Amino acid sequence: MKNDIDTMFKRHRSSLQHRSKPGAEPGTIVVHPDLALLPVKIFVVAYNETELVEKSIEDIDEVQPLLEKFPLTWVNVSGLGNLETLEKVTALFNLNKLAMEDVVNVHQRPKVEEYDDIFFAVATEPDIIKKELVMQQISMFWGTNFVLTFQEHESDCYDPLFARIKHGGRRQRLLRPDYLAYAILDAVIDNFFPILELYGTQLDDIEESAIDNASTVIIRHIHNFKHDLHMLRRAAWGLREAMASFRELAVVSNSDLRFFIRDCEDHTIQLIDILESYRERTSGLMDIYLSSVNNRTNRIMKVLTIVAATFMPIGVLAGIYGMNFDRSKPWNMPELSWEYGYEYFWCLAILIAGSMLTTFWRKGWFKH
Amino acid sequence: MKNDIDTMFKRHRSSLQHRSKPGAEPGTIVVHPDLALLPVKIFVVAYNETELVEKSIEDIDEVQPLLEKFPLTWVNVSGLGNLETLEKVTALFNLNKLAMEDVVNVHQRPKVEEYDDIFFAVATEPDIIKKELVMQQISMFWGTNFVLTFQEHESDCYDPLFARIKHGGRRQRLLRPDYLAYAILDAVIDNFFPILELYGTQLDDIEESAIDNASTVIIRHIHNFKHDLHMLRRAAWGLREAMASFRELAVVSNSDLRFFIRDCEDHTIQLIDILESYRERTSGLMDIYLSSVNNRTNRIMKVLTIVAATFMPIGVLAGIYGMNFDRSKPWNMPELSWEYGYEYFWCLAILIAGSMLTTFWRKGWFKH
Amino acid sequence: MKNDIDTMFKRHRSSLQHRSKPGAEPGTIVVHPDLALLPVKIFVVAYNETELVEKSIEDIDEVQPLLEKFPLTWVNVSGLGNLETLEKVTALFNLNKLAMEDVVNVHQRPKVEEYDDIFFAVATEPDIIKKELVMQQISMFWGTNFVLTFQEHESDCYDPLFARIKHGGRRQRLLRPDYLAYAILDAVIDNFFPILELYGTQLDDIEESAIDNASTVIIRHIHNFKHDLHMLRRAAWGLREAMASFRELAVVSNSDLRFFIRDCEDHTIQLIDILESYRERTSGLMDIYLSSVNNRTNRIMKVLTIVAATFMPIGVLAGIYGMNFDRSKPWNMPELSWEYGYEYFWCLAILIAGSMLTTFWRKGWFKH
Amino acid sequence: MKNDIDTMFKRHRSSLQHRSKPGAEPGTIVVHPDLALLPVKIFVVAYNETELVEKSIEDIDEVQPLLEKFPLTWVNVSGLGNLETLEKVTALFNLNKLAMEDVVNVHQRPKVEEYDDIFFAVATEPDIIKKELVMQQISMFWGTNFVLTFQEHESDCYDPLFARIKHGGRRQRLLRPDYLAYAILDAVIDNFFPILELYGTQLDDIEESAIDNASTVIIRHIHNFKHDLHMLRRAAWGLREAMASFRELAVVSNSDLRFFIRDCEDHTIQLIDILESYRERTSGLMDIYLSSVNNRTNRIMKVLTIVAATFMPIGVLAGIYGMNFDRSKPWNMPELSWEYGYEYFWCLAILIAGSMLTTFWRKGWFKH
Amino acid sequence: MKNDIDTMFKRHRSSLQHRSKPGAEPGTIVVHPDLALLPVKIFVVAYNETELVEKSIEDIDEVQPLLEKFPLTWVNVSGLGNLETLEKVTALFNLNKLAMEDVVNVHQRPKVEEYDDIFFAVATEPDIIKKELVMQQISMFWGTNFVLTFQEHESDCYDPLFARIKHGGRRQRLLRPDYLAYAILDAVIDNFFPILELYGTQLDDIEESAIDNASTVIIRHIHNFKHDLHMLRRAAWGLREAMASFRELAVVSNSDLRFFIRDCEDHTIQLIDILESYRERTSGLMDIYLSSVNNRTNRIMKVLTIVAATFMPIGVLAGIYGMNFDRSKPWNMPELSWEYGYEYFWCLAILIAGSMLTTFWRKGWFKH
Repeated sequence: MKNDIDTMFKRHRSSLQHRSKPGAEPGTIVVHPDLALLPVKIFVVAYNETELVEKSIEDIDEVQPLLEKFPLTWVNVSGLGNLETLEKVTALFNLNKLAMEDVVNVHQRPKVEEYDDIFFAVATEPDIIKKELVMQQISMFWGTNFVLTFQEHESDCYDPLFARIKHGGRRQRLLRPDYLAYAILDAVIDNFFPILELYGTQLDDIEESAIDNASTVIIRHIHNFKHDLHMLRRAAWGLREAMASFRELAVVSNSDLRFFIRDCEDHTIQLIDILESYRERTSGLMDIYLSSVNNRTNRIMKVLTIVAATFMPIGVLAGIYGMNFDRSKPWNMPELSWEYGYEYFWCLAILIAGSMLTTFWRKGWFKH
Repeated sequence: MKNDIDTMFKRHRSSLQHRSKPGAEPGTIVVHPDLALLPVKIFVVAYNETELVEKSIEDIDEVQPLLEKFPLTWVNVSGLGNLETLEKVTALFNLNKLAMEDVVNVHQRPKVEEYDDIFFAVATEPDIIKKELVMQQISMFWGTNFVLTFQEHESDCYDPLFARIKHGGRRQRLLRPDYLAYAILDAVIDNFFPILELYGTQLDDIEESAIDNASTVIIRHIHNFKHDLHMLRRAAWGLREAMASFRELAVVSNSDLRFFIRDCEDHTIQLIDILESYRERTSGLMDIYLSSVNNRTNRIMKVLTIVAATFMPIGVLAGIYGMNFDRSKPWNMPELSWEYGYEYFWCLAILIAGSMLTTFWRKGWFKH
Repeated sequence: MKNDIDTMFKRHRSSLQHRSKPGAEPGTIVVHPDLALLPVKIFVVAYNETELVEKSIEDIDEVQPLLEKFPLTWVNVSGLGNLETLEKVTALFNLNKLAMEDVVNVHQRPKVEEYDDIFFAVATEPDIIKKELVMQQISMFWGTNFVLTFQEHESDCYDPLFARIKHGGRRQRLLRPDYLAYAILDAVIDNFFPILELYGTQLDDIEESAIDNASTVIIRHIHNFKHDLHMLRRAAWGLREAMASFRELAVVSNSDLRFFIRDCEDHTIQLIDILESYRERTSGLMDIYLSSVNNRTNRIMKVLTIVAATFMPIGVLAGIYGMNFDRSKPWNMPELSWEYGYEYFWCLAILIAGSMLTTFWRKGWFKH
Repeated sequence: MKNDIDTMFKRHRSSLQHRSKPGAEPGTIVVHPDLALLPVKIFVVAYNETELVEKSIEDIDEVQPLLEKFPLTWVNVSGLGNLETLEKVTALFNLNKLAMEDVVNVHQRPKVEEYDDIFFAVATEPDIIKKELVMQQISMFWGTNFVLTFQEHESDCYDPLFARIKHGGRRQRLLRPDYLAYAILDAVIDNFFPILELYGTQLDDIEESAIDNASTVIIRHIHNFKHDLHMLRRAAWGLREAMASFRELAVVSNSDLRFFIRDCEDHTIQLIDILESYRERTSGLMDIYLSSVNNRTNRIMKVLTIVAATFMPIGVLAGIYGMNFDRSKPWNMPELSWEYGYEYFWCLAILIAGSMLTTFWRKGWFKH
Repeated sequence: MKNDIDTMFKRHRSSLQHRSKPGAEPGTIVVHPDLALLPVKIFVVAYNETELVEKSIEDIDEVQPLLEKFPLTWVNVSGLGNLETLEKVTALFNLNKLAMEDVVNVHQRPKVEEYDDIFFAVATEPDIIKKELVMQQISMFWGTNFVLTFQEHESDCYDPLFARIKHGGRRQRLLRPDYLAYAILDAVIDNFFPILELYGTQLDDIEESAIDNASTVIIRHIHNFKHDLHMLRRAAWGLREAMASFRELAVVSNSDLRFFIRDCEDHTIQLIDILESYRERTSGLMDIYLSSVNNRTNRIMKVLTIVAATFMPIGVLAGIYGMNFDRSKPWNMPELSWEYGYEYFWCLAILIAGSMLTTFWRKGWFKH
């Protein structure tokens, strides 16, 4: 399993390998070998106002009797690796081929569309797996008596919703497929917030690092951070547009559901607001880092200059008194014959060093 | 109290911790533990043309008789930490659950919405607490005979308005709930201006610092300044849009209130203008700082080069006359035996140093 | 007077101190103490096709008889510091309170609005006072038989217009208040062009400086220049929008005035075009300056390296021949006993220096 | 052939040499000498539900009988270098002169237009030839019974489509010219994805290089990469707009084809999404590279400073003990006569070096 | 003549000196003294289907008989320096005063306007004179039987068009004034392409220079290039908008001319595309240059460090063996008395130098 997920993640970097081949018949469902490694799991919840059935099934045909018996059946397929299952589902619910192609060709932009009486939605859900951001595509169809969701891999994002259906007193509202679809999208959008909180904390750390120390690791951090933000922003903008087109669907715009969807839309706007504020804070980080690096160069230069300016004159002085002029001539280097010549030299040396250091100290070079 | 406010501010950085959990029922009011620490205070002003009652109350039920007696009752709830109170208020005024969720999940984008006959507005008010910018969410409901405002924590922003209601001769206009709502929003918007003035002064300081000295502290200042500007800009844009949708509300667009709201909208535009001009001035600051740092490197380099270029040749000269060539050979270092050899050396040394310094002086290296 | 103007300018930096207090009654006229220092002057021109009266008046009441006698009276109030005068004017012409508040709270965005039968326009006029850019707000009301203009301080921008009214053969057109209002706005817009020409010349200078020498003063120049451009651009965009809404006013859009206003609008577009081209040229200046600084660092480094690489090896050589190895041993430093050892040393030294310098010369380090 | 393609590529850099001369009659077809070198090949596929004819033809007149016999004939002309052929084609299908000019003046923006009953589309197809990105213009006309495509040079992008026509069971749909036109555009758009995947991998490599090592080659890579991205983005945006206007064509918007075109439009949006994310990742690369370079300067400076600060003091010390003060005076350099003077010197030297190195080590200068 | 053109160009930098004075009567034609130096030339072409008259005229009155005789007369006035001529033309064709002001106040934004039955167009044509980009304003009026063009100075841009009128078989189309106007605008737009090609080549050169060598001249080149691009882009965008409003003119939108204009619009879009791609390539050039400069600093530093690190230790060693410790003490500098002490020193020196150089070589400092 671990390796499967690993393989799966790699594709997220160059998010393009899942497509049906160029020139293929539109509406062709092609299962990518990577995805085929992940197991396919189907989970069904069917309920009416009083009764609720929930089970994991192997064969999609087991859904048929539930559809007939219950007013609402929610089928969740996690894993997109089994062509046969996908084709069976397509046939059972009479789904549009082009839409099914979008289910399999993950990395679609979020959208809500209508095909005859069946609605189709694509959303993107962020997740942190192994410290890396992974965007999972959630696809969803809903009709008069069913909601059908597809996930790339299993996750626990529907758990609170399952709980509400199971225990909640307001089940009558959750009996409507469009309301359930809305609730699923709402759960997906709510899932962004803890991720954003995490990124907020990370951003604080990166800011501190960029200002204070200038190791190369930070560039990589900043760069990855920017890229993750971009992915989240893209997803959030997509969801916002998707919610807006959801609200404008004829069936919805006349029901009370539109208030809920507008609220959900507000959440996406809030998401975008936060992401924009992160982006704004990130945008200046490279400049800050660059200043940091240059500041450090500055400080190194200061050390070098102080050392050189202090020792060089003394060295020259020592060199001078090491010259071999003929001391028999009275005008040649009389200092060398002085009683306290050596002490005189040291005084001179200390004077030079002292005056140099004082100058630099006055220039403020010792203050950091 | 101090610690409470401290805790509260921390959340402002990563503005996300206040939300109801992902997957929760929409319309659920969840009180965040941090907010629960702040005390809840309720203040009521009820008045008609001749009479005015103002009091702090403990229990929201005390409002009921005022609502019945006076044509307009303004209830201000500061502190969002008491679930029971919030639920009582919701019930008393028959407020929309989704709107109440927005009241508690602070950091909403400003907006004006209509739920049946009750209007709902969210605004953001800036405040400087402990030298840090804090954005407080103001939520407001108004109906036919009441205005209900929520603040995150107590502030004195309504004081001038209270005074106008109490003493003002034009109370008849302030008897209309929509006009009072407008006046509250106007007060919120007017509160931006002194804050902006403060930021303007700060910007002048930062500009001076960035150009003249290049300490690392300034980066942090610039970075924080940018972030604060971003928050203010976001709030100002939000308020502008909110005022625009307020003006377009059916009830308003036919009354004389629309002139006042347009005036208020003009103020938000002026806010945005000022903020854009600040932003524009800020945008180049990092570049200026970087130039400053590099200029400083430049100057350090100059010092080093001048020192090295002045002393190195003299040192070499001294080294040469310190060589031990066999002076018995007539062609070996005759200078050493000259009568004034040492003086000749000094002349040479001073000549070298002088010519070096002159060269650098001509290049303008001594000018700063 | 000089000090008054000085005080007045200071506020232009942090353009916010003129506002009525937060929470004040909308439509309150508050005179800022700074503005109160400037004297208020009222100048009136009243004329019909044959006759023209022009005079400076002290009391606004003197206008009443002119209004009754002449078909068009133009009253210009320069200086906004006298509350009494402003209130009298408001009463005399029956002006809208909110509009009057805009007159006093200078730094409004340019606009043209209609209040019942009276039109209100705000424009911004640039001026260079003491080598600094000052934006002056021009406010204007016009009705059926009057045009009323407000200036922050006296200026000569209306002089050519006065001349045209006085001497011009086409006075019949200037008898219409809307045409006169247009002519005033046109004069304001035309006033931008000489200012822009001045800035163009200044930009040429700054460009030269940024490329050639890298003193810190230039940063300040560039920064201020950018800020001034921003202010001019904001004013120009505002005027453009104001002219567009002027043209769309019902009264105007059916008369031949709309051609003149469109022409005027074209001028604002031309203004914006020029300002955008300035901005574009300015945008790269900091980069250029930074390159300049780094280039200079480069050159300093070259000098240091050339000096060090030339003298260091010679110094080392001299040091070697200054060593005190026991010369009685035949293998120890035989050079020192050579007949022409000293000459040999000099040849070596010159060779080393020469080859170093040649290398650097080949690398092109001596070329600038 | 090789040289021909080489010549052809050169023009792609300065994509302007193909135009008819300034002032020429609009609608003039001018064959550029470069293009004239490439051979012109015509390939025809004509089919009905049961029969299919495919052949390479020399003379365009051979198409006439196929047009009469089959409900749909697809003529593909690769190579635009033969004026006579182009004129014959224009005459045969009665094509619009201005559209034909667009066919020959390659580097048009993608578009879909209608001329009477004949539709005209321009698309851009990316290709990697000799490791360089080449954008090829695909032009297409379609009418009631024909589809006519033009390529700049031969490519295999239609092969899967040919295969579908030949073997596919759903040929009835491919019998409609508009559906075939859509399928061709779909194939062109699908051709972007493998190219993008390639660029994604390349971007990963460039990112690594920019962060880790700072050779000049990378600047060139980044610069070219940006330029290629720009070309792809331009093409993708163009295609998106073209598909949108295709969908809005009266003939299409009422048929079921619009679902297919919307799907295709979604693909272009996905293209743009990917390209925007690449662009975003690329945008910071120069900054990263610059930081890299400056970091490296930093490290070089450290080496220099460590070397200088370690050896200079020892050198000065050695110089001092090399001075020639008259040792007969007791206060002159007594160290020189000590029993273990030399050892004392070495201890001092090692102490100095040790303390210097310790200081730098503490500052973290040895860590990278 | 040469000097006249020189004077004329200077104004192009600070494109503002041509305006009528602020406050002047709108519609006043003012001839700028600079323009007055250039000679005014009038060239007339009048033709019907069979006959064509072309001549240079001195006096504009000579046009009158041609207007009466021929269905279409094209009058081209090059040089705007003669007020009398301009006024005569205005009177003869009954032109709008505001439009005439635009003709003289060059540097208008391109536009197409309608004044009663006379149409007015302004376009901008690029030209390279003395290696500098010069934008010339082309103004044009056309009515039922005439086309009247104004140029700032003579150029050969109409030559191909003259040729088409003279020799072309399709003269019937060119008999319509609106078609001729379109053809003139088309010629103006086509004139951009060779200029752009030239800039493309120049851009290639600048890119090479920026990456490879880092002389200061390049900054100037890049800066000027950017400015020229900006001017071209402004002109191209203006032309695009002008063509769009031309197409929407009532008279045009119902005739077949609209296809031609749309084609022409496509050309402006192509222009903009190319200019945007140039801009995109230019945008990163300063960064590249900066990297180049820093890279060079890097290399200089390396040379310095290598020299210093190689010679300094040897110098110190030589200094040590030059010390004057009392060699009578057995522990003082025994090396000096060794038989092969000098050789030992050299070995040590070479070892030190060698190990230093090897270290740097391993670090890759010698590579570039």
